[in-house]
Amino acid sequence: MSYRHPDREQLRIDEVLTALGNPVRLEAVRILNGGGDHNCSMLQTEVGIASKSTMTHHWRVLRESGIIWQRPSGRETALTLRREDLDARYPGLLDSILTGRAIDAAGEPGA
Amino acid sequence: MSYRHPDREQLRIDEVLTALGNPVRLEAVRILNGGGDHNCSMLQTEVGIASKSTMTHHWRVLRESGIIWQRPSGRETALTLRREDLDARYPGLLDSILTGRAIDAAGEPGA
Repeated sequence: MSYRHPDREQLRIDEVLTALGNPVRLEAVRILNGGGDHNCSMLQTEVGIASKSTMTHHWRVLRESGIIWQRPSGRETALTLRREDLDARYPGLLDSILTGRAIDAAGEPGA
Repeated sequence: MSYRHPDREQLRIDEVLTALGNPVRLEAVRILNGGGDHNCSMLQTEVGIASKSTMTHHWRVLRESGIIWQRPSGRETALTLRREDLDARYPGLLDSILTGRAIDAAGEPGA
């Protein structure tokens, strides 16, 4: 199985913003931004979503908007943030979004 | 009639991104970023949407996510970008998004 990914030049800001405008997907991107490969099952556990079909939808939205690479890896799929492509296409965007997420989190009860 | 607006501290990054992850709303914000007051009818014409109810929905999404002020003004409502609040809460975010929109537009056929 292979997955369709847009080229860097095919990225669209509204699709990127819609993809990141969801707490689960934004949390997944925050984790991926920490570096390294993650497989779907591990990352699903890390973001705390029980439903595999829900996460399959989230991975597809992130992949089709050009935010992650999704590659077959044995019986799993590996996920990687397309940091270089995002920074090249939209300088400063991902950093300001991840910083914004941290600002929100710092203001929440229990933070 | 008065409208509910979130305070600056109540802004949430996922709501802001979802609101801006729509070409019509992003175009409206681009126009508002040019400065000055705009009323709903004028701005509806500028973004090129015929349906008033569609635009009423878009204004509500932008207002409730904290991106615009919407104030009664005679028989109309006046719209203003909450630039200061957005820049204070999420430094660099709005600029990187508007720049991203311009990058997309520059790559489109006919640009």
